[in-house]
Amino acid sequence: MPEYPTDHAGLEILPFDACLRLLASVPVGRIGFVENGEMVVLPVNHIVDGQDVIFRTTHGSKLSAAEGEYLVAFEVDHYEAQTHSGWSVLMTGRAEMVDAEADVERMSRHGPRPWVTAVQRAFWIRIRPTSISGRRTPA
Amino acid sequence: MPEYPTDHAGLEILPFDACLRLLASVPVGRIGFVENGEMVVLPVNHIVDGQDVIFRTTHGSKLSAAEGEYLVAFEVDHYEAQTHSGWSVLMTGRAEMVDAEADVERMSRHGPRPWVTAVQRAFWIRIRPTSISGRRTPA
Repeated sequence: MPEYPTDHAGLEILPFDACLRLLASVPVGRIGFVENGEMVVLPVNHIVDGQDVIFRTTHGSKLSAAEGEYLVAFEVDHYEAQTHSGWSVLMTGRAEMVDAEADVERMSRHGPRPWVTAVQRAFWIRIRPTSISGRRTPA
Repeated sequence: MPEYPTDHAGLEILPFDACLRLLASVPVGRIGFVENGEMVVLPVNHIVDGQDVIFRTTHGSKLSAAEGEYLVAFEVDHYEAQTHSGWSVLMTGRAEMVDAEADVERMSRHGPRPWVTAVQRAFWIRIRPTSISGRRTPA
């Protein structure tokens, strides 16, 4: 018996608090945005701050997505190939640069360390969610 | 020393053949598309057929993205949380329904089994790539 109601595809619909917990349970998610008319989906290592997702980036495509508060998607998932089971959480929201100095300093101390250290990644992006939803395969 | 040239973020730029190999090396990727003006990123289990990505879906959001040959993104990645290392491959292309009966029959026999079996997933989607690119953290 599924623990939660299922959708048209037979997947369990996860409640909001479970989505937030799962969002924070993995170190890497994927940000999706449109850049020059092309869709881009890229992994970033992130943290969850309240209900916001925060990650660090260099100048470049990911940053330009956040200028002007673009609509973005942020996805996390986990799956077990052996059991063909898994879950995913999708957040959509507005990305914005974190520019308050106090915030940047706090996050630089406590935030996720970028996995590539060759280049200084000085820019922090915060995604403020407009929706969060999650699904999992039934047990 | 990195094996490949690096980008502005310090990530190694993977050659095309390595991207294709990695694309086929994992059972799950994420399809990204725009639906009703909102970005959607969802995991699917996929196979690689030549240079195309193929997956099965129910009626619903994923399918509607493919009607009319929408532009979509398909992303795969792998990371090691302990070593802070990983790679990702991003394909962009046009999604289309597979409607030739012979193709559907062949793929139903040999294609990926959907991980949720509660519902019949009769629709196959093929993504024909317009671009493939990949990055990895330097060793």
